[in-house]
This record gives sequence, structure tokens and C-alpha cells, in this order.
Amino acid sequence: MGKSLQEITAPLLEKFGRVDESIVKQLSTGIPLLDDAALHLFSKGGKKIRAAMVLLTSELYGREPEGIIELAAAAEIVHAATLVHDDIIDQAFFRRGDLAVSKKFGEKAAVLAGDYMYTTGLNAAIKYGTPEIFPVMVSGTGDMVKGELYQLQYSNINAINEERYYNIIELKTARFMGTCTKIGAIMGALSPAECEEIRNFGLKTGLAFQIIDDTLDVAGADTGKDSGNDFMDGKITLPLIYFLNAVSESEYNEIIPLMENPDIEKWNQIKKRVIESGGIAYSKSAAEKLVGESLAILKAFPESESRKILEEIAMFIVDRDF
Amino acid sequence: MGKSLQEITAPLLEKFGRVDESIVKQLSTGIPLLDDAALHLFSKGGKKIRAAMVLLTSELYGREPEGIIELAAAAEIVHAATLVHDDIIDQAFFRRGDLAVSKKFGEKAAVLAGDYMYTTGLNAAIKYGTPEIFPVMVSGTGDMVKGELYQLQYSNINAINEERYYNIIELKTARFMGTCTKIGAIMGALSPAECEEIRNFGLKTGLAFQIIDDTLDVAGADTGKDSGNDFMDGKITLPLIYFLNAVSESEYNEIIPLMENPDIEKWNQIKKRVIESGGIAYSKSAAEKLVGESLAILKAFPESESRKILEEIAMFIVDRDF
Repeated sequence: MGKSLQEITAPLLEKFGRVDESIVKQLSTGIPLLDDAALHLFSKGGKKIRAAMVLLTSELYGREPEGIIELAAAAEIVHAATLVHDDIIDQAFFRRGDLAVSKKFGEKAAVLAGDYMYTTGLNAAIKYGTPEIFPVMVSGTGDMVKGELYQLQYSNINAINEERYYNIIELKTARFMGTCTKIGAIMGALSPAECEEIRNFGLKTGLAFQIIDDTLDVAGADTGKDSGNDFMDGKITLPLIYFLNAVSESEYNEIIPLMENPDIEKWNQIKKRVIESGGIAYSKSAAEKLVGESLAILKAFPESESRKILEEIAMFIVDRDF
Repeated sequence: MGKSLQEITAPLLEKFGRVDESIVKQLSTGIPLLDDAALHLFSKGGKKIRAAMVLLTSELYGREPEGIIELAAAAEIVHAATLVHDDIIDQAFFRRGDLAVSKKFGEKAAVLAGDYMYTTGLNAAIKYGTPEIFPVMVSGTGDMVKGELYQLQYSNINAINEERYYNIIELKTARFMGTCTKIGAIMGALSPAECEEIRNFGLKTGLAFQIIDDTLDVAGADTGKDSGNDFMDGKITLPLIYFLNAVSESEYNEIIPLMENPDIEKWNQIKKRVIESGGIAYSKSAAEKLVGESLAILKAFPESESRKILEEIAMFIVDRDF
């Protein structure tokens, strides 16, 4: 196990402080309920991977571009907006070590705070970005929402397959990572071809990130992390898809009833079989391949402190607690 | 009783048809659940007051500006997004004569469809408007959301007063009407001073519109319309504020328990007293004063078909079923 994410992003600490200030400034309205609800998720800081992506890709060649702190803040605000609404949808109790916004302030305030956070994040793209930034931000935002709906429609046992799984994670996670890296690249005045390459770096890193997240949800119990959340929510992820493809028809028919009305006991039965089938190893290897491609993209850029940190983040993603 | 709104806006029928087409085009994604949920509210057409405001103010001097149909569609999409989310918040069953999106497709799909509608509407402002349009659209959108939260925080018996009531209705209704009329004015190449005047026309008309809506919620039973929805939701509106200011302290103390845990029987007691107090007449007169100011603003513009329809819409607002 290598460095922690906090250690990797330590050189960004001063910038993260300014990002935090910008988040508070952008989201403050003077209406106490709105301010408290919109800023709640930020009170614990969060990992700020998306802000890091914006900041680091903007400095692959030069110095900090003007407005980049505000755009990094906007990326975190838009991402947090999706979390606020996801927690309503999933009826989640906790987020970032505290109550979910919907549990602390009620669902009404959570719906509206999320809406306000979206409009604020999109507004920042116009206010602080060059004219190319807004279409990138708005399509990345729309894709996340589309991905959640695509997941709602297809991530169940009757509709899921590997192609749809990749569509879901590309839309809901990877494209917005690609948005963050592309925003940095554009603001850092990279050439259009380089901006596309850096977007691909974000996209592939984002795919790997989500695959590992989904894999940890199966295998995480070994490290004390809760497992089975996706299963309980009826979401079928890559390790399970692999497992379901690998079993015989008679086994498949035996498994299906375990997936209906999921509970923790059924999950423990399924989980053991998924791990034994090699579903975790298969998923981890898919993520590693993607990170390998990510790193190859970065190699085309000159060595720098920023490139080094981006490489470390990409490697960290597949090297997390297993 | 004068013309119906449908009769007033009949000259816009061909344009409304193109607005409908643009709404479908802008919101179609190929994900069936998203398309069905996002387009559901439009299946009944709706009144299209906001589209009418965009279209009519854009033609106070000249011919239809390019992109105005798409911007009118965007105004309807953003407005519909707020309705989709409001119906989750208010646990509403019906909207526009059909099931609410949250009841027909579930709350999960409704949260996400609303989010997607917001991003789509804001995107259209960039895609089809001049550069001044986006800030107007995004601040109008943010204000609606702020207004809902302001209402959640202050529209209860312990916090409400007339000043806060006007803040609520300005934020949640009037400013977006002002946004619609200003978008039309900007696209119609009016001078900055004229754009501000036309925005004020929208703002005042919007205030009057919401006051009458709130008044109909008290007095509407006489015409067979459901009444008391605001009261049941714990929202205190202008007729009640007037009534509460008018009663003696001993009466006030007697009324307060009727407002807690509202039910239809308590509402029938309160309603009768609100009407007798003159709360309806007071509110109607406040709305009439605002519409008078709206009409005065329009008088400064040359006579035209568009101006005539705008005047008729403004007058219709206070002349609705009482």
C-alpha cells in the first residue's frame, strides 16, 4: 500500500484552502436554511479529487491560470449537488461521516439546495471560465444526471449487461472527471488536441475509479468497510455481472431468487460466491488496464510536479483498500 | 369576465406549436425513463404564460428574432423543472390534470428528470441566446429556487409578515417572469433602459399573478376550485397575513391553535373569517395596483399586436375566476 490520497495531494493544500473559501463565497445567500444545507457536505472537507483534477491539469505547462480556483470550486459544488440528490434517491443516512443533507435538513431543503448548487456551479463556469468552458461543464453535468437515470432504468437483474454497465459508469462518473480535466486543460491553454487527450485521461481514470468503488462494495467487508450497499439498492455492478455470466444455467436460476428482495443474509451468500468466481479479480484487472492507459496519456506531457501528482492519483485509485 | 387566456393567446398558436416541438427536441435523450418523465408535464400543453412573455416582448418593435422559439421553450422547461421538484416537496398527486411526475414515475426519476430539465434549459440560454442572456436566465433560475427555500424557512405562522411574503413571491415567481420578459427584450434588441422597463413589467405582473393565485386558494371554493392547499401545507399567504394583523390579541390567541396541525375543518373555520375580515379584497386590490403599474410601463411602447396581447395577459391575471 502506497501513499494515502491526503499525502498525494498535500502539495495542493494552500490551493484547496482557497477552493474552500470560494465554495463558501459562491454558495452564501443569506437565507440560513439554504446556506446551511448547501454548505453542509463541505463542512468535512471531502476528498476534492475533482478540484485536484481541475487544478493539476491547468498547470501541465504553466502557472496557475486566473479563475481556476473558482472553477475547481464549481466542479466540487456540482459534484456535491449530485450527492445531495443521490442521497434523497437512495434514502441514505450518512455521507462524508455526517448525516446526509436530506436527513439533517429534510428532503424538501435537500431537493432545493441541490438545485441551487447546480445553478451556482454552472453560473461559475460562465463567470470565471473562457467561453469554451460552459458547454463542457453543462454537458458533463447533464451526463451525470443522465447516468443516474440510465442506472435507474438498466442497473437491475433483468436489464443489465457489461455494455450497459460501462454506459452507466461512463455517464454518471467518468464523463464528469473528463469534464474536470478538460476544464483545467482549456484554462491552461493546451492545444485542442491536447485538451482531448487530457479529457481522455480523466475519462479513463473516472471509469477505473467507479469500477474500484463498485468492487470495494463487494469485497470491502474484509477491511471493515460496509459492503453490499449496491446489492441492497438493486444495482448490479461489474463483479456481479462477471459472476452471473460465469455460472451455469441451473446455478443462475438458483441465484435469481436471492437477488429479489435483497437482505443482508442473501448478500452474504452471494458475496462469497462472487469472490470465489473471480469477479473481484476480473474487475480489478479491468480497472488496472484503464489506469495503465491513463498513465500512457500523461507520459506524452513533459515531466512536472503536476503530472507527477496526477499519475499518483491515477495509481492510487486502483491501489485503494482492498 | 373577459376573454379566456386561451383566447388571448390565440394569435400565438403557430409559435406555440414550434415551442412544443423545440421542447421535445431539447429534452429527448434516448433514455426512455428520462424522456417520459421529462416530457410528461408537457403532454397536456400547459398555459405557456412564460413562453408567451418571451415571445411577445421580443416583438415589441420588430419581427421574430432568431433563436426566440428555443429560448421560449427553455423558459417553459426551467419552469416545468421547478414544478417537478415542487411536487416532490409538496407530495402533490396531480399537476396539469394528470399525475405529478413523482407519482407517475417515482420520486427518484422525478428528482433526476428535474435536474436534467434545469441543465437543458440553462444550456439553451447559451446555445440560442446572445451573451447577455445566460446571466439573466441563471439568476432567474437561482432566484426561483431561493424563493422556495425562503418560503420553507419563513412562510409559517411564527415567522411570516407582509415584507417576507413579498420577498417570497418576488423570488419564487416574479423574478422569473421578469427574466422571461427581459430575455425577450434583449433578443428584440431593445435599449438597456427599455430592457429594464420590460423586466419591471414582468416583475410586477408576476407579483400580481402570485397574489391572485394565493387569493384563489382562499376564495376559490365559491367557484368549485379546491381551496386551502396553502393552509394545509402550512404556508401563510397575503389574505391570512392581513386577517392576522386585523384581529385583536385575544382573537389571535384563539386562532393560533387552529393553524397547528391543519385540517379541512379548521380551514373552513379560518377561511370564513379571512373572507369576512376583508383579506381577499385587500389582496385583490394589491394585485390590481401592481397590474396598473404594469400597464403604465407598456404604455411607453408603441402600439402593436404584441403590446396588446401583453396588456390583455396582465389584465387577465387579476380578472381570473373569483
